[in-house]
Amino acid sequence: MNNFNLHTPTRILFGKGVITDLRAQIPADARVLITYGGGSVKKTGVLDQVLSALKGLDVLEFGGIEPNPSYETLMKAVKIARDEKVTFLLAVGGGSVLDGTKFIAAAAHYADGVDPWQILETRGSEIQSAIPMGSVLTLPATGSESNNGAVISRKTTGDKQAFKNPHVQPVFAILDPVYTYTLPPRQVANGVVDAFVHTVEQYVTYPVNAKIQDRFAEGILQTLVEEGPKALAEPENYDVRANVMWAATQALNGLIGAGVPQDWATHMLGHELTAMHGLDHAQTLAIVLPALWNEKRDAKRAKLLQYGERVWNITEGSEEERIDAAIAATRNFFEQLGVPTHLSDYGLDGSSIPALLAKLEAHHMTRLGEKQDITLDVSRRIYEAAR
Amino acid sequence: MNNFNLHTPTRILFGKGVITDLRAQIPADARVLITYGGGSVKKTGVLDQVLSALKGLDVLEFGGIEPNPSYETLMKAVKIARDEKVTFLLAVGGGSVLDGTKFIAAAAHYADGVDPWQILETRGSEIQSAIPMGSVLTLPATGSESNNGAVISRKTTGDKQAFKNPHVQPVFAILDPVYTYTLPPRQVANGVVDAFVHTVEQYVTYPVNAKIQDRFAEGILQTLVEEGPKALAEPENYDVRANVMWAATQALNGLIGAGVPQDWATHMLGHELTAMHGLDHAQTLAIVLPALWNEKRDAKRAKLLQYGERVWNITEGSEEERIDAAIAATRNFFEQLGVPTHLSDYGLDGSSIPALLAKLEAHHMTRLGEKQDITLDVSRRIYEAAR
Repeated sequence: MNNFNLHTPTRILFGKGVITDLRAQIPADARVLITYGGGSVKKTGVLDQVLSALKGLDVLEFGGIEPNPSYETLMKAVKIARDEKVTFLLAVGGGSVLDGTKFIAAAAHYADGVDPWQILETRGSEIQSAIPMGSVLTLPATGSESNNGAVISRKTTGDKQAFKNPHVQPVFAILDPVYTYTLPPRQVANGVVDAFVHTVEQYVTYPVNAKIQDRFAEGILQTLVEEGPKALAEPENYDVRANVMWAATQALNGLIGAGVPQDWATHMLGHELTAMHGLDHAQTLAIVLPALWNEKRDAKRAKLLQYGERVWNITEGSEEERIDAAIAATRNFFEQLGVPTHLSDYGLDGSSIPALLAKLEAHHMTRLGEKQDITLDVSRRIYEAAR
Repeated sequence: MNNFNLHTPTRILFGKGVITDLRAQIPADARVLITYGGGSVKKTGVLDQVLSALKGLDVLEFGGIEPNPSYETLMKAVKIARDEKVTFLLAVGGGSVLDGTKFIAAAAHYADGVDPWQILETRGSEIQSAIPMGSVLTLPATGSESNNGAVISRKTTGDKQAFKNPHVQPVFAILDPVYTYTLPPRQVANGVVDAFVHTVEQYVTYPVNAKIQDRFAEGILQTLVEEGPKALAEPENYDVRANVMWAATQALNGLIGAGVPQDWATHMLGHELTAMHGLDHAQTLAIVLPALWNEKRDAKRAKLLQYGERVWNITEGSEEERIDAAIAATRNFFEQLGVPTHLSDYGLDGSSIPALLAKLEAHHMTRLGEKQDITLDVSRRIYEAAR
């Protein structure tokens, strides 16, 4: 096991009706800016529940944070937060609203006269403070509700970049599985794929004999495999929704990644696909992961075999056959959720691969993966295999 | 899954040599009281490492906290903390030192003129503040390093009682597996049994379809089953020690118990055995658990079968046979670690059972277990079956 420093301070309030605990989490004298997305929280009534729970507090609203939240949109909220002297941010939505709100939190406190895009350029390393934030989660997927990372896009340049900093770790997260009943199937499937890939990015690397981390990762994967299809088939099955929601949080709160190697190349290659072609984040992961695993099957051999055996009960055949079967089972799982796994399924023929590689290079993504050996040339092979 | 409120704010610094990160965790202007036990931390050099890491800070020491830390001893440290205006407590040791330091932390801030034993009488519910504390753990077992509970004994009355409060949650925990190399085998075995029983107290109850919690609990148990005997056979196997240490922390930091029923009757019946007869905590758990499971086999049927299958691969035979096999495997595991599972193994013939039941009654432990149906009569049958 590798050394680690793990801090998971976000308070989780989980379950049906826990919105009643929201008020007690926010300072009574706070000036609150509620942030949300395209308005589904209005249609579903979640925003009304939030406003009702906060009655008597000093509350402002900022809606319109889009999927793959953009610097351009978020800077409008930064202006409001600064002008109105907001002291608490409450993100109501999914990972995009969460990530966007983390940017607002840090940018509002960022040094005067410095363009907050600098936060992305420095990957968050220069953030000195941020407006405290909490969240009411409506879409289990990214784990952003209990970690300190975020991914922000810039429309004008086609960039999609990540940052992290302890100052943007949410103070609390309200997780009510009932809020997820009304999600469109595509978002449910995307969320399951996203949580699944978060988990394997921290697990299918090389062994360091970290048994707890491995078992926990496998438990999350088994749960997603069992509950993901059910979440689509039985949208109002509370326990299924609860298990998916808790799985997604555990997939990226730092716990399973503590003390083990981490990959994240699938995410990096995927981000460029989203930035250039507008694919959903999870779609890009479903495209890249099987191709990447096949490309790196030797370096990941031991963990691919362990994954195949413990998650998919693949115990027969040669090592190559078992690895093939593990990759096929994963591809099939994504496809069965309705998330296709080839570029061609999204109308892409691979002609943009040189441009995607140029973007990777521009973003300094030339040595990716747990062994930093996914060079641009390897990335090219992965993109090509994903056609 | 049941609703829950989960907060795990203790920062974990894990791995070989992380003592070098200790200094940065404590405020530079702190007046620190280092607490420890019978002096093994002096022999092993851990205390020297701590003192060296804190060079330049204002540091006091208090040694002599015994296993099953006593009110009588701890009140001496409370006096020092008050007289010397201590602002930070650093526990260096195992669960007893941790638990004792939590009491010191709360008692030093407790209302003037009130006997701090009141903290136990009110189970911690009236604690308003405490001296902040951290720890350097030398014995993986109790999980006390990252939770807000403690168990304190009172020599003069033969009481052993628990309290919990968020104010005594440690700020950080330094977990270096190398520090556990020199532990006596009996303490290693006790630690494994303790962590194992913590896990099953939150898992072998009744199903609420909480898949992540179940899988994580099973992962901890599998790890302890695999690594426990190895920790005894290969005391300086780093990965084995690391896995046991991390398993013990995860067993009782709140995570696997969030949203699921909890039992704890084994602990309550065990505490009386320790208080009256001086048995090690883990010895009492090893005695009580198999007898309790047999007594409650109907109420725990579904989870005992799941436990047998997933932890011990018990899939053959009738339900009764599989439950018998699961209980036998557990008993055998404890025995193989060198922790006997019958009262008679410790020279006790059961003649104290009426007195033990009287103590349970005095401590209001008359309705125990996840369904509050372990009455004094059921406890009597469990003690008797454990002879």
